[in-house]
Amino acid sequence: MLAFEVRHGALVAARRPLPKLRKGWALVRVRLAGICNTDVEILRGYHNFRGMPGHEFVGEVVEVRGVERRAMQAWLGRRVVGEINISCGALGFRRPCGFCRRGLNTHCARRKVLGIVGHDGAFAEFLALPIENLHLIPASVTDEEAVFVEPLAAACEILLQVRVAAFRKAAVLGDGKLAQLIARVLVSAGVPTTMFGKHSAKMAVARRAGVATRRVKGLDRDLVGAATPSFPLVVEATGAPSGLAAAIAMTEPRGTLVLKSTFHGAAAFETWPVVVKEITIVGSRCGPFPKAINLLRAKLVDPRPLATRTFPLSQAREAIRYAQRRGVLKVLLKP
Amino acid sequence: MLAFEVRHGALVAARRPLPKLRKGWALVRVRLAGICNTDVEILRGYHNFRGMPGHEFVGEVVEVRGVERRAMQAWLGRRVVGEINISCGALGFRRPCGFCRRGLNTHCARRKVLGIVGHDGAFAEFLALPIENLHLIPASVTDEEAVFVEPLAAACEILLQVRVAAFRKAAVLGDGKLAQLIARVLVSAGVPTTMFGKHSAKMAVARRAGVATRRVKGLDRDLVGAATPSFPLVVEATGAPSGLAAAIAMTEPRGTLVLKSTFHGAAAFETWPVVVKEITIVGSRCGPFPKAINLLRAKLVDPRPLATRTFPLSQAREAIRYAQRRGVLKVLLKP
Repeated sequence: MLAFEVRHGALVAARRPLPKLRKGWALVRVRLAGICNTDVEILRGYHNFRGMPGHEFVGEVVEVRGVERRAMQAWLGRRVVGEINISCGALGFRRPCGFCRRGLNTHCARRKVLGIVGHDGAFAEFLALPIENLHLIPASVTDEEAVFVEPLAAACEILLQVRVAAFRKAAVLGDGKLAQLIARVLVSAGVPTTMFGKHSAKMAVARRAGVATRRVKGLDRDLVGAATPSFPLVVEATGAPSGLAAAIAMTEPRGTLVLKSTFHGAAAFETWPVVVKEITIVGSRCGPFPKAINLLRAKLVDPRPLATRTFPLSQAREAIRYAQRRGVLKVLLKP
Repeated sequence: MLAFEVRHGALVAARRPLPKLRKGWALVRVRLAGICNTDVEILRGYHNFRGMPGHEFVGEVVEVRGVERRAMQAWLGRRVVGEINISCGALGFRRPCGFCRRGLNTHCARRKVLGIVGHDGAFAEFLALPIENLHLIPASVTDEEAVFVEPLAAACEILLQVRVAAFRKAAVLGDGKLAQLIARVLVSAGVPTTMFGKHSAKMAVARRAGVATRRVKGLDRDLVGAATPSFPLVVEATGAPSGLAAAIAMTEPRGTLVLKSTFHGAAAFETWPVVVKEITIVGSRCGPFPKAINLLRAKLVDPRPLATRTFPLSQAREAIRYAQRRGVLKVLLKP
């Protein structure tokens, strides 16, 4: 199959055999894959990942191994999305780790992560995942919507961690792909939400989804200072080291700051305002796929305006370069 | 009266008139004051404070202004400690700010803070505080215990913010004054607690209070790496910029990290582990005085072994230098 691998900070095309299946695993033909900022960070060295990146996809199950005939029929030929954390049970360990025992599979101590940690991802014609990671996509949800399930679920994780309905308003820092989905999820939960971002075209996309916007030239210059706007709930999704200091400055006393950005490298900032204002910072990663699928099925969130362009898989190198251009939101790959 | 003021990074003795009293305020003769790391940070420029520092004290009410005779009799001559945040109401504003309206007086938007922000503190023979800030000290609690109420209350704040009983074990980073009190409070709440610190003499003091200890040479070298110990609840109370990175490394996935250190300057660290492990960081500052007084009255926490030495107020300069020596815990000033 055609696949793209990370080598010395670049994507390289390769011909690879189909992934082998463990018992209880499925082979999925990728129909559409999304490029995430994490993929760009991986090229920069994040997690020292070697192999095929890509963790956002919608695909079709073409083979299932070691399950009963009925289970096989339930999956073969169906459109699916897949959770990216592969936990002990599916990796063949007999005894679950302490986190899996507590039901925290996404935090499995021995987990591999699709396209991020030790397991090949979706920048390829096929990928392998445990059946327990798969979720069926209803017919009313298109491929172009379903490819957003993984990042939309990450946005929905905030709903499980914070009682957002208790907040009279929220701010989202950043106007990128994930920030856009987070703002839509907050609005869908009834929280008046203001997005702070740098790009007027991206802000216009958010406004059409019911998100208030405020353009800032720079997070440092415009958001930290005497006239800093103040919110009880702030979500940091800039993907940049400067975002956290601005987010801390914008969070009101006893407020909640959700941290979504992951980037390679250290950020420097003063921590005393966190203590003095008694802010709670909540790190937030992967989220509930069923909730995301429900939002798409109910048409409560429409991610399609976020897809800037689709490239054929064979042009993955060009696509990941294009994804880093100013003003570009989601870039998709079609094998 | 004799008082000590901050001038150009040093404590300077001065003769000052007695503080004037607003209506509803009390004049307190300081019996004993404590030196906190925050006082040292103030000398280094924290909060740009000008005036008399000192926010830990036990004293005696010698004058009360503008209250009924019965209220006056309830306070005059009594031993008291005092909450350090002076909120709008007591400062003469007619309408309370949004935080005071919600009962969050310690976060009052216009607050002054005893010896820290805009209000002279306890490194003097007398200080003034609103009566609403005062708490009576029972006869069974000595001055030497009562002078610890303010930092002990700050340690107790954790109990209001985090359900500590839900955690099977906790780690406290740091072996200083506040770390010592925090570890005692956690032990008093039934949480097996391990203190990580550098000074064997300080660790021995903690062990005598039922705290497990582990000596580390440096937070960076010994605590961040492959063999990093892992705790569901971690309290960062090192007072040093390097403490937070170590605390993040030690907090297990979905764990809680309580941030207590305030220091002047920026800390640099990688934030992605907060996101990947979905850690919750809780900034924690001033706490419940009644809870602290109850712990002292019930003899559940004995702070006296933490008092290294008492200086006369006239030697406050020597005292604050002494307080920064290696191995020294709490230094007290007696006017």
